[in-house]
Amino acid sequence: MALRSSPASAFPRLIRPTASQSQSSSSASGLRHYSAPLAGTVPPAKQKYVPTSGTYPKGFLVSGTYVGVKPANKSTPDLAFLASETPCAAAAVFTKNKFQAAPVTVSREMLKRRNNSGIRSVIVNSGCANAVTGKGGMEDAEKMGMQADKCFDAPNDGKGGSTIVMSTGVIGQRLPIQKILNKIPAAYDALGASHNHWLDAARAICTTDTFPKLISRTFSLPSSPSIEYRMAGMTKGAGMIHPNMATLLGMIATDAPVAPALLQSLLTNAVNKSFNSISIDGDTSTNDTVAVLANGAAGGNEITSESSEDYAAFQNTLTELATDLAKLVVRDGEGATKFVTIRVTESPSELVARKIASTIARSPLVKTALYGKDANWGRILCATGYSLISEPGLPINNVPEILPEKTSVSFIPTDGSPELKLLVNGEPETVDEVRAAQILEHEDLEILVRLGGGTEEAVYWTCDYSHEYITINGDYRT
Amino acid sequence: MALRSSPASAFPRLIRPTASQSQSSSSASGLRHYSAPLAGTVPPAKQKYVPTSGTYPKGFLVSGTYVGVKPANKSTPDLAFLASETPCAAAAVFTKNKFQAAPVTVSREMLKRRNNSGIRSVIVNSGCANAVTGKGGMEDAEKMGMQADKCFDAPNDGKGGSTIVMSTGVIGQRLPIQKILNKIPAAYDALGASHNHWLDAARAICTTDTFPKLISRTFSLPSSPSIEYRMAGMTKGAGMIHPNMATLLGMIATDAPVAPALLQSLLTNAVNKSFNSISIDGDTSTNDTVAVLANGAAGGNEITSESSEDYAAFQNTLTELATDLAKLVVRDGEGATKFVTIRVTESPSELVARKIASTIARSPLVKTALYGKDANWGRILCATGYSLISEPGLPINNVPEILPEKTSVSFIPTDGSPELKLLVNGEPETVDEVRAAQILEHEDLEILVRLGGGTEEAVYWTCDYSHEYITINGDYRT
Repeated sequence: MALRSSPASAFPRLIRPTASQSQSSSSASGLRHYSAPLAGTVPPAKQKYVPTSGTYPKGFLVSGTYVGVKPANKSTPDLAFLASETPCAAAAVFTKNKFQAAPVTVSREMLKRRNNSGIRSVIVNSGCANAVTGKGGMEDAEKMGMQADKCFDAPNDGKGGSTIVMSTGVIGQRLPIQKILNKIPAAYDALGASHNHWLDAARAICTTDTFPKLISRTFSLPSSPSIEYRMAGMTKGAGMIHPNMATLLGMIATDAPVAPALLQSLLTNAVNKSFNSISIDGDTSTNDTVAVLANGAAGGNEITSESSEDYAAFQNTLTELATDLAKLVVRDGEGATKFVTIRVTESPSELVARKIASTIARSPLVKTALYGKDANWGRILCATGYSLISEPGLPINNVPEILPEKTSVSFIPTDGSPELKLLVNGEPETVDEVRAAQILEHEDLEILVRLGGGTEEAVYWTCDYSHEYITINGDYRT
Repeated sequence: MALRSSPASAFPRLIRPTASQSQSSSSASGLRHYSAPLAGTVPPAKQKYVPTSGTYPKGFLVSGTYVGVKPANKSTPDLAFLASETPCAAAAVFTKNKFQAAPVTVSREMLKRRNNSGIRSVIVNSGCANAVTGKGGMEDAEKMGMQADKCFDAPNDGKGGSTIVMSTGVIGQRLPIQKILNKIPAAYDALGASHNHWLDAARAICTTDTFPKLISRTFSLPSSPSIEYRMAGMTKGAGMIHPNMATLLGMIATDAPVAPALLQSLLTNAVNKSFNSISIDGDTSTNDTVAVLANGAAGGNEITSESSEDYAAFQNTLTELATDLAKLVVRDGEGATKFVTIRVTESPSELVARKIASTIARSPLVKTALYGKDANWGRILCATGYSLISEPGLPINNVPEILPEKTSVSFIPTDGSPELKLLVNGEPETVDEVRAAQILEHEDLEILVRLGGGTEEAVYWTCDYSHEYITINGDYRT
């Protein structure tokens, strides 16, 4: 299918361009925002995570536009628009929370109706989650999608809209929908393919994030070695982060050609090892959505078989990019001062390893000890010990998967120095507290738990609990 | 069985009395201790929870003695001794944590060996949990029990020890066992039945608690209306508090006569509705033990049938006392500024209601919002929405037990004013924020979640997350 070069030719204008929105920031440097942080306000320690250039997939155009969804937000972009010059294959993974936000329901139904094909764009607002907003909220989410659809040649396939809708922010408040609808044409006019366009969009989806999260890369597929494919993704955290999934939004776009029927399994596999393997605070939100769009603009052979080499190569690239995005969310965990990898090995099953890693990752006592740089490994073992027990009222589960006398715990320093053994086969080591303190001084740390009962393993990424976490979440709505 | 009047006659001395231990405090008023708080240091706001008198069960003698289990502890009692003048029926509920502390294993085996009868005492140290201490830790716990046993006429029934052993404090460190053994005779010499003796013992089991937790009451049994029975209990928190159960120790003593075979089910029922219905931080420790001892010293008819009126009456008294003790643990939750009752009603099952209440109770976002006095009910609903979902890697659970369009959330003020409806049948109410702020100003609050899908309910008690929680747990071991 033919590529078009400019948004003007790609998308017949519906309205006159609006005045471009102010980009000036009124917020103090380094402070957390409840809408997107601007370039000048990224904390110095986090600036290294913000790319200064990128390689972006062909045929995709993006923008970040100011709406003012939150009355307190006077200038920062809070509406992101991602559009493909041609219809895409698309798939998404949504939260399992029983209270699904309106945009989750609307987007899920749209993808189902379209069998994951013919998708043109993604429209995202920050500042309000449009969750638990009743029937009115459903109508708002539908209007957002329809307004974005109007920017394109309306498809006559009778399958309705072709836009994925996402919202993030406070739960239980209605969207200022008219303000958003009025700005979507401006968001369309602002579309572009430059690095700054991608960065603006990444900023616009942020809430309490301190920096925009954007990653891009090139890759190739075995059957078309001469073609340089591209993949780019953006995501946001930074609280309510826990598998299935969190107030976490993600958009990944690629110009590789993938059969719509395969894209969902590719994304689900990638998310399980990335966004579903991180935890900030154990809360699982109402809005989580990670979407992938593939427009095939780079040409080459479409991936049509799960058993093909191309499928495996694409899966690896997608999983890697999703993992790098997920790690950025942990890096920016609310109040986080530490980035902690939790690896559980020698497990009878991957599921057991994952459950244990997840339990350690969400233990407030482990997370506060990490914040305090306290080698309180007893808390790690304690969390391991209750990770598989039954709830009160249910029969006692004897947890044969954990054998105390075979369990070992170590700190793996990130400076390449040898592991510090804390517990070996259930017997505590005499810990060199000075060495432990040195290891805990680093921002990064790996906690290794060996179960001694198998060959499976799982990895989780988490952060610590700091005073700032309490401050941020004690006054989120104010 | 004949009662004896004084410890001297009841317990042949094995050694000379030691000099009585110092009771002076070196700690600043209101600060958290890592061993027992002394009278002068209870925060003013908590003093109302410390009784100035009590009615204690006949035939029980207690003491609180200074050992210095933690080197930093120079004067505060950290060894509690509870003894009965005559052998007791006894039962205990222990943590489900797979890494059971040595005293948990030793006490469980002792009660099993004795079929819950012939128990003489409970010995407890604070300052070190004797958990994950390997074979040496097991020997230490056994020695503690044997040293306490030496205070009594050694039973010749070939069933070994008759003392329940408990420890609480840091995990993964060995006990200074010789210091403890040397002090047990002094703890024996210090035994007494006065209110101050009970208060000293309650102080001695504390760790980060800011006040000793002691409750006593009188009750009667239908078959012996003329007899005044007595029950007294003490407990300690204050972190790692979550069902099954937490670094939580409890001792309950009564002079009512209960058949040993019935005491375990009576205690298990009581604990499920009390200590297993509170959450401070969702962590479940290695040491949790709640024990009940019944010596029958008040006479009357022994409770021998689960279908008797006496059984029901005793169950009510035991459950009430355990619930009041559990609530004191929440009142003293680390850094807690709020006492929050979470009631989930109109549930298809008690288990579902309990799981939802438990999930809300441990949500960091709910707990930080409560600390911030923020009526962020969306977080309550969000926690409800993910309370029953499946773990990553497991099949998606559709959670038919929760019907968003039938779910309602309200704040129930503790000042008797009408409930504040936040969500009604899935539709958000226009919340009077001023009224909400007034309600959140109170220390006590009830969150009511109506599922609209049944008649079962469950209640949970929890507290908020404050900056102090982070401070306390960031440097626990220092």
